[in-house]
Amino acid sequence: MDIYGKSLELHEKYHGKLKVEEKIKIESKSDLALVYTPGVAAVCKEIEADPESLYKYTIKSNTVAVVTDGSAVLGLGNIGPAAGLPVMEGKCMLFKRFAGIDAFPVCIKSQSTDDFIETVKKISAPFGGINLEDIAAPQCFEIEKRLRQEMDIPVFHDDQHGTAVVVLAALINALEVSGRTKENSRIVISGAGAAGTSIAQLLLKYGFIDISVCDRKGIIFRERDDIKDNIAKTELAMQTNPLNLKGGLAEAIKNSDIFIGVSAPGILEKELIGTMNEKPIIFALANPEPEIDPEAARIAGAFIVGTGRSDFPNQINNALAFPGIFRAMLDLKIRQYTDEILIRTAEAIASCVKNHALDKIVPSLFESDLSKAITEAINQLS
Amino acid sequence: MDIYGKSLELHEKYHGKLKVEEKIKIESKSDLALVYTPGVAAVCKEIEADPESLYKYTIKSNTVAVVTDGSAVLGLGNIGPAAGLPVMEGKCMLFKRFAGIDAFPVCIKSQSTDDFIETVKKISAPFGGINLEDIAAPQCFEIEKRLRQEMDIPVFHDDQHGTAVVVLAALINALEVSGRTKENSRIVISGAGAAGTSIAQLLLKYGFIDISVCDRKGIIFRERDDIKDNIAKTELAMQTNPLNLKGGLAEAIKNSDIFIGVSAPGILEKELIGTMNEKPIIFALANPEPEIDPEAARIAGAFIVGTGRSDFPNQINNALAFPGIFRAMLDLKIRQYTDEILIRTAEAIASCVKNHALDKIVPSLFESDLSKAITEAINQLS
Repeated sequence: MDIYGKSLELHEKYHGKLKVEEKIKIESKSDLALVYTPGVAAVCKEIEADPESLYKYTIKSNTVAVVTDGSAVLGLGNIGPAAGLPVMEGKCMLFKRFAGIDAFPVCIKSQSTDDFIETVKKISAPFGGINLEDIAAPQCFEIEKRLRQEMDIPVFHDDQHGTAVVVLAALINALEVSGRTKENSRIVISGAGAAGTSIAQLLLKYGFIDISVCDRKGIIFRERDDIKDNIAKTELAMQTNPLNLKGGLAEAIKNSDIFIGVSAPGILEKELIGTMNEKPIIFALANPEPEIDPEAARIAGAFIVGTGRSDFPNQINNALAFPGIFRAMLDLKIRQYTDEILIRTAEAIASCVKNHALDKIVPSLFESDLSKAITEAINQLS
Repeated sequence: MDIYGKSLELHEKYHGKLKVEEKIKIESKSDLALVYTPGVAAVCKEIEADPESLYKYTIKSNTVAVVTDGSAVLGLGNIGPAAGLPVMEGKCMLFKRFAGIDAFPVCIKSQSTDDFIETVKKISAPFGGINLEDIAAPQCFEIEKRLRQEMDIPVFHDDQHGTAVVVLAALINALEVSGRTKENSRIVISGAGAAGTSIAQLLLKYGFIDISVCDRKGIIFRERDDIKDNIAKTELAMQTNPLNLKGGLAEAIKNSDIFIGVSAPGILEKELIGTMNEKPIIFALANPEPEIDPEAARIAGAFIVGTGRSDFPNQINNALAFPGIFRAMLDLKIRQYTDEILIRTAEAIASCVKNHALDKIVPSLFESDLSKAITEAINQLS
């Protein structure tokens, strides 16, 4: 049986992957009187008098909502909020496993941006943070921006910033292993959705200078007619592509150093790797099928290869970042992440690899307490 | 330290009362590949193709939302959705403790009926049932009615029907102990909110004939001017008070057999008990302070006394009913409760008391597997 069949079997056996448990066992009437009525009335009154005490007396201080509208689930597209639930449950498991955070899925049956925002705001009381998940671009940009403005708890779109942080972490080590600097590296990003856009922005903030982004129609450049109505792409055009390159992926890749794919399976032809500069770095992160088979990339001359898959070395996985970032935001009571926090997180992740090498530019999820390292790094900022 | 101080301390120590756990432990990359990407993609596709398979592959088959707008929390009134959270967490604990159900709090920041209904519908994917909680009358009636019409999962307002079921269960045994029949018993209900209205309706369905309901202004009767705009009270006036009594609580209680209070502390003066028929039955269920002190009621001549409190005998507690009703609805895939289900549940609860007596008209939460008994009783209906 293949991995998909096994996964179906496992999900059916357990009827889903999460359970809600009591922290305190109710064994007697007197337990009941403390956790429920009448005792609980005192807690309600305290919170009514001082809403901040929600953090003290309820699950809010350690609980995160994993929120989707199901509009861009994995590589499956707009399959809707119900069909997205198994991914949200999985994400909640990762929050618990890698950061001890209680997370619960919120699947919103509406793909109107206003509806989404209003719904999240209306149900936020039990949550100390909002993790946005699998929402299509460009709506995800406005949703995150407005929720950050209008809510008093941290809001984080993992597909954007979690991905960007882990890519930066991998790049920090890959630069060192390949003897490059951020200033002399030419980067091509394939994919101008949530992930591609956020990666470009974070790398610019970090100090990379020469980044080009390609979407399905080719390189994004300032005069491109078809991007005029897309604010996110117009902004990208202003910020990237300093040489004002035009053309397709082939034109962008020629003489570049680093390829970062967050786009579609198989779109990087192996011949293109030969047109890159020496010791090219290839991150083919499309999931589950990468932009190029990692073995084929290596044979074609790639120096360092990373994918999103767990069955190849250098797994560039969001799960390296988001649990720790939320752990830090909850524990340090940070109401908004900043670029500095994202960069510091990437550095913390990179530094968790003690002896980096071609096949070891990111830590393994299972071998280090990343959540703790990230919290410590972010704590030094405040 | 009193119970309120102890409850505050306990809530602060644990930072709330619920946690979310993984059903399956993630120990390796291959575990990750099964519960998360890429394996989970197969599960998403199955659900996209067949939405019913949500019950098979996700938490939906065992998960209930405990939903409030915080408009009528315990006896504290309209303290809002955030201040109501500790009660919702407590309720979720009861679902787990007494029926093995995973329940999660949903606190809706809006007291518009339409907003409430839309929000519940939008976020329902992970839930196999909706338990409405602590919502003020009369909005609670419309909210429940419309959600039952518009949703394909069971919706149950515990404050109405849970209370009514447990009152009926207690009455079944109290009638026997006091040698009465439902046809020859005169009942006075004090309180015409969610609970009082639902109790009156269920008792009528069960076969009680003479029921009068009092609100703050006295007995509800057909010609009362001030109830014309309140649909729920107008309906009550049509269904109850067959002798067309007028006046206050004193006039209603005179020559009655059973007093059921779901109203306010201390409003039953002990002198009134002497005006009731022989062997009067007093259920003083206001929480946490009952309509009359149970000891005072007994001294004044009450034959059977029940309260909502855990520190007196005959605790008439919702928690005897709702966990089992939801267990049955989830397990038997019942999309709507019916009056027959409520009555059968009350009978099942009543029959769990093996040797009923003055001080033992309802079972204890801790001594019997009510959830199982209720599920079996309801299963015999289908």
